[in-house]
Amino acid sequence: MNISLARRVVAEFLGTALLVATVIGSGIMADRLANGNVALALLANTVATGAALVALILTFGQVSGAHFNPVVTLMDAWEKGLRWADTPHYVVGQVLGGMTGAVTAHLMFALPIISLSHHARSGLAQVFSEFVATFGLVSVIWGCSRLRSSAVAFAVGAYITAAYWFTASTSFANPAVTIARCLSDTFAGIRPVDVPWFIFSQFLGGIAATVLFRWLAPNLQVRAKEVLLAHDFEQNR
Amino acid sequence: MNISLARRVVAEFLGTALLVATVIGSGIMADRLANGNVALALLANTVATGAALVALILTFGQVSGAHFNPVVTLMDAWEKGLRWADTPHYVVGQVLGGMTGAVTAHLMFALPIISLSHHARSGLAQVFSEFVATFGLVSVIWGCSRLRSSAVAFAVGAYITAAYWFTASTSFANPAVTIARCLSDTFAGIRPVDVPWFIFSQFLGGIAATVLFRWLAPNLQVRAKEVLLAHDFEQNR
Amino acid sequence: MNISLARRVVAEFLGTALLVATVIGSGIMADRLANGNVALALLANTVATGAALVALILTFGQVSGAHFNPVVTLMDAWEKGLRWADTPHYVVGQVLGGMTGAVTAHLMFALPIISLSHHARSGLAQVFSEFVATFGLVSVIWGCSRLRSSAVAFAVGAYITAAYWFTASTSFANPAVTIARCLSDTFAGIRPVDVPWFIFSQFLGGIAATVLFRWLAPNLQVRAKEVLLAHDFEQNR
Amino acid sequence: MNISLARRVVAEFLGTALLVATVIGSGIMADRLANGNVALALLANTVATGAALVALILTFGQVSGAHFNPVVTLMDAWEKGLRWADTPHYVVGQVLGGMTGAVTAHLMFALPIISLSHHARSGLAQVFSEFVATFGLVSVIWGCSRLRSSAVAFAVGAYITAAYWFTASTSFANPAVTIARCLSDTFAGIRPVDVPWFIFSQFLGGIAATVLFRWLAPNLQVRAKEVLLAHDFEQNR
Repeated sequence: MNISLARRVVAEFLGTALLVATVIGSGIMADRLANGNVALALLANTVATGAALVALILTFGQVSGAHFNPVVTLMDAWEKGLRWADTPHYVVGQVLGGMTGAVTAHLMFALPIISLSHHARSGLAQVFSEFVATFGLVSVIWGCSRLRSSAVAFAVGAYITAAYWFTASTSFANPAVTIARCLSDTFAGIRPVDVPWFIFSQFLGGIAATVLFRWLAPNLQVRAKEVLLAHDFEQNR
Repeated sequence: MNISLARRVVAEFLGTALLVATVIGSGIMADRLANGNVALALLANTVATGAALVALILTFGQVSGAHFNPVVTLMDAWEKGLRWADTPHYVVGQVLGGMTGAVTAHLMFALPIISLSHHARSGLAQVFSEFVATFGLVSVIWGCSRLRSSAVAFAVGAYITAAYWFTASTSFANPAVTIARCLSDTFAGIRPVDVPWFIFSQFLGGIAATVLFRWLAPNLQVRAKEVLLAHDFEQNR
Repeated sequence: MNISLARRVVAEFLGTALLVATVIGSGIMADRLANGNVALALLANTVATGAALVALILTFGQVSGAHFNPVVTLMDAWEKGLRWADTPHYVVGQVLGGMTGAVTAHLMFALPIISLSHHARSGLAQVFSEFVATFGLVSVIWGCSRLRSSAVAFAVGAYITAAYWFTASTSFANPAVTIARCLSDTFAGIRPVDVPWFIFSQFLGGIAATVLFRWLAPNLQVRAKEVLLAHDFEQNR
Repeated sequence: MNISLARRVVAEFLGTALLVATVIGSGIMADRLANGNVALALLANTVATGAALVALILTFGQVSGAHFNPVVTLMDAWEKGLRWADTPHYVVGQVLGGMTGAVTAHLMFALPIISLSHHARSGLAQVFSEFVATFGLVSVIWGCSRLRSSAVAFAVGAYITAAYWFTASTSFANPAVTIARCLSDTFAGIRPVDVPWFIFSQFLGGIAATVLFRWLAPNLQVRAKEVLLAHDFEQNR
């Protein structure tokens, strides 16, 4: 079975949209109900995001690989798991999907369609946190890619659940999600001016993990085309 | 192995009853103990509901498919996974099961058997939330239906866990559950007058997801008869 | 492979001890830290108990079946999954294990070894709750017994997670655990005088579920010997 | 496939580093946000740690066995699952990894690189708690080692989730993690003077569980070389 590029890009668009709708929407809900108890709000935000990742990776994994993340897509192409020619389509689908997810969340909560965030997330500690967060995420993906496919969905969901708490930045770890979150002046937002540093650091973390796992698990390229869940496409014919 | 319609309808009745007893019962318990902290109450309600879905889908999936939801039943029939003649029995079983679940919860908490809810859930944002919630739920079901069966139970449980928080309506996403919840003047209730809009929107979301996945994953009809968990019935002989 | 009765009884003893140590110990810890917020304490108690069940059923399932519960043991014998002659050994192991678990929890938290509980849990609503709780638990076990074995661990853990919240009694659903909890004057305790009604109601719920699933899933007896996880013993030779 | 000792030690180093970064980092985050509500802080700490264990064991299990814990490594060698000559490399990798994880957490939260903890955790109840915690952990590992490999990741994650709450010491159960935590004067810290008793008690608990499971599940040595996840190395050729 091979799946057309159009279908795969739509899957990336939809999955990223629902992921961002979860991140932003659950942040708004949690913030409204938590009466200023930020730990409780972040806990609800965490549970929702981790659970959404499990559901969405299981749902879209066999269509597009369920990347939802430009870092993952580029690292997958670097490991010959995805054709380089497909990557711009994937990334555009993910970024537009993320924006659509932000708009969807705002509509569900009767907020303005888009509002630039004022939530400052700057400084070396934040940027280093994003490096660690994405290094860990890409390590989990490469480490689990030889297990049966549905294990990856649980591993990624569990990893992000942990990373929301163990990094100072609450672990964005995803450029498409980062861009979308700067369009939301809510709990999950990030100031546009802080976005470039986050994205730079995320790619650095992804590259470091990929280089490391090339040595740590040398049969990486063979498995790369099954990231995240087994997916086939024209190139494999 | 084929399973008689009577057995399948009783499974739908029981599963929906236990699901609604969880939604309403855990709402009452959480509301009583949370001292007005709504975020904490909703978190407990969420954890209970997501966990119940995992347990109940694993329990009844191989008997009836574990729909517990008229939208899922009708979409499954549309995809030729269920005979049209069986759908009214399924839906009646689900609606009566939901009502029985509400009564059971009330009895366990020593409340009047039935009380119409005064919890207003109206407005475009709420109705749009139900569209998104059910669109997502049916997408998860179609997307996961080609994975091994127990993955669906975890995917649906995880999805609803997220959707309780990322939608403004706390994601009813189920007409049988919606009807049952209007009979409970408690945390999880909904005013009878708001019910029709919720149900209308839920069907719209389910139809949108089904149409989309027909294109996104064309071998849908082949797999439809295994929704949610592999189940066989007379038609397959 | 067959496993001697001594080994299986020790597994039941150890598993029930660790289960009760979790229920009581996490109750003490939660109660101490929660500053009177009962919803938060119960949430911690729930998360710990549900997780412990997953770990303990996976750990001891292939040795003894991981019943940890006299209702499950007697229902399993009724379905010819366990020799009647073995049941008294199982039940004694479970009850002594539960008591040992209570003592262990008290020692870990520097409390008196045993103290009779003053926590009143009486009235029809409580007793009806235990009926529903145990009916659901035994339904989950019979419903999942035909799935691959590790699914049962997750289903039971998820079910009890939900049942802590959707029943008014916080779902003891287990005579051995009920007896142990009357020996602990802490968060999880129950007055000795309330114990008989709880146990009576638990057996009634278990019997109702077993009778129902005999009709709902007629091949029950064939699978009964694999409850909870596949386990073999001398009788099978 | 065999995996070189260097690769396996790096995997142990990285896994332990990320585990300790989670334990300490999520403790700092939770403590900062919880406004003195210790139950809420510990709940966030618990959810993060349990989830991290699932992700990290799935990620590194097939490289090194994902021990991350000197007690597990020595017990595995005792059961002939690991060459004795490899154990010092494993343990050094784990201890250095743990320290690196502490430093990483401090850098992410803009704290001094290292600070000795003042968090007193002494007394017989604490030491007994560590015995029980590690006895349970090693029991779970031996009990699950005959199930399919990814079950172990979920069982260990679930067990530690429970053990954070049911032991008075919040279940360190790991000498490498204990050493690392004495270098952090934060929520998760432990006074250096309390460390030796914790480690002594952890080894005692591990030995007790290993001796018990030799009798309870006699085919232990055959399976020991697959702890935690199936891993092969030169010795097996």
